Amino acid sequence: VPGPSIGDPDRRIKGLRCPPAVRDDRALADRVNERLVDWAENEIDLYTGEMRKDLLAFDPGRSVMLCHPDAVTFEHLVAAGMLLVGENAVDDYFCEEDYGGSPEGLGARLAVAQAAIDPAHMPPRYAEQYEQALGDHPALRAMRSAMDHFERIATPAQAQRYRHDVANLYLGYNAEGACVQTGRVPSVWEYLVQRQFNNFRPCLTITDAVGGYELPAQIYALPEVQKATALAGNASTILNDLYSLRKEMATQRLHYNLPIVIADEEGYDIHTAFQKAIDIHNELVDSFEAVAAPLAATDPVLARYLAGLSNWLGGNHEWHSGLVGTRYAVEP
Amino acid sequence: VPGPSIGDPDRRIKGLRCPPAVRDDRALADRVNERLVDWAENEIDLYTGEMRKDLLAFDPGRSVMLCHPDAVTFEHLVAAGMLLVGENAVDDYFCEEDYGGSPEGLGARLAVAQAAIDPAHMPPRYAEQYEQALGDHPALRAMRSAMDHFERIATPAQAQRYRHDVANLYLGYNAEGACVQTGRVPSVWEYLVQRQFNNFRPCLTITDAVGGYELPAQIYALPEVQKATALAGNASTILNDLYSLRKEMATQRLHYNLPIVIADEEGYDIHTAFQKAIDIHNELVDSFEAVAAPLAATDPVLARYLAGLSNWLGGNHEWHSGLVGTRYAVEP
Repeated sequence: VPGPSIGDPDRRIKGLRCPPAVRDDRALADRVNERLVDWAENEIDLYTGEMRKDLLAFDPGRSVMLCHPDAVTFEHLVAAGMLLVGENAVDDYFCEEDYGGSPEGLGARLAVAQAAIDPAHMPPRYAEQYEQALGDHPALRAMRSAMDHFERIATPAQAQRYRHDVANLYLGYNAEGACVQTGRVPSVWEYLVQRQFNNFRPCLTITDAVGGYELPAQIYALPEVQKATALAGNASTILNDLYSLRKEMATQRLHYNLPIVIADEEGYDIHTAFQKAIDIHNELVDSFEAVAAPLAATDPVLARYLAGLSNWLGGNHEWHSGLVGTRYAVEP
Repeated sequence: VPGPSIGDPDRRIKGLRCPPAVRDDRALADRVNERLVDWAENEIDLYTGEMRKDLLAFDPGRSVMLCHPDAVTFEHLVAAGMLLVGENAVDDYFCEEDYGGSPEGLGARLAVAQAAIDPAHMPPRYAEQYEQALGDHPALRAMRSAMDHFERIATPAQAQRYRHDVANLYLGYNAEGACVQTGRVPSVWEYLVQRQFNNFRPCLTITDAVGGYELPAQIYALPEVQKATALAGNASTILNDLYSLRKEMATQRLHYNLPIVIADEEGYDIHTAFQKAIDIHNELVDSFEAVAAPLAATDPVLARYLAGLSNWLGGNHEWHSGLVGTRYAVEP
């Protein structure tokens, strides 16, 4: 039985349970995109030619506009957009074969990428060369400049939280790279472990900084808050797998993702596996909501943070389903 | 000119500037070792045969006894020892060729290792398999059990700090694995970047938890506190490079380490490069002390934390130089 949505690029994937987006403001998204393009062209010299066109097609302004409806100022949205562009630049240049990335030697490149947002301390004669190296690579310039902007709107503890989430992201990139390099399709549980690291989480957990408030570090660290955060990140990331698979099936370029590992392990055809992955997405959303509801009742700042995660889920769904049909559409 | 210390296993490396150890209590170290061996044998079934003997030769009890002179109870020292053993088990089983580790597929194994201390959240039918996998591997059992013990003495924010430091540690392992796999010796600045991740830091930053107090997360995150922490971790890690090189030269098994990358990049013989690495160690210690002194004056809890880092440096030096000559000596 074919799934109702794969290969049907004009509509949302049916059957996804997800909160609705709470705003949609194309003009605001365009203003953010303009700032990001200006930054890419004039401040950090990121991408050239086709790759710069892809930056607009990716529509980062719309992502942050939708995902951070409570952004306290335009500059806060721009900071979120810069981080998103920077994260994608690292993925493009260091991981993705289309842009010259590769699993070969990846771990060494990602350590330097982390040192673009988490300063290394060494004697001055070597520090100079390290500074030079950060300035010489577009993805490193992007992450470093984005982090500078973020630190203007975030407390040190929020910046540290972001560094942790990106360290985890790179652990996930290394895990995926290792599987690609060894030609091994992970089992479903292992894929879900990897995907909790290789995850939108760094985008979600800036919700308070972008909203102009702070969830205190000691609350953020509570196991139940960590669980809610992980579940929201996992749901939004599996949603990305579903939309990506649909696009990739249209273009015949397959990355491994949840439906593919399910099909591989459980012997389903890809359409059935796609439905199973939708079920997993929905279970993650339900679990997030079940964990978040009692937590939200305990503290108003925590309630706002959890609402921010929920807003992010809704905005992210809208962004993914809307990448087709906007003026920045990836596909015709 | 031969360095005064390489190949001279009976003495401390000369010319290292390092704070002195503030206590040395062999009986206490032995008690901790006894607990760790009991744990390895009866709780987590870690190592067999020669590898279990190596656990005692490594003398983790002496490390934590020396490095945490202000441990508030015996159980706090044991928790620190378990983490140290767990970290080494991951390195042994997943990275080190002698124990069956390899750079091949390393990134995937390290993602699962991180999920032993940072729980993955997934639907129950997969969670069961994930639990099973954590129980099936000795290194994963070790890290998970050590983390359980640590969470009894640490606040959630301290546990989160530890997870962040271990994520960075694994980024460093991946970086080293990538260089080994591609046969590339990194330049000195890049090595120092990698080594700030592949670092003793997770052992140092538990100093407050082991001491029975908490450096608040918002203080810990301050850039100058991060800098002091990184410098202390880097100094102690380079010290390890120096002692390891001496041992490895005696056994003809060379890992790449700071003197080797200096010799490779700067064209010195290994003895001169060893001296240059001693200079770098000393510069890192001096920088740590220069950053720490004014910080300590600002807050008594921060002062205690910084003193804890300094104690760790001194204890670590004593431990490294004392591994020869104790009853757990690695070498005769």
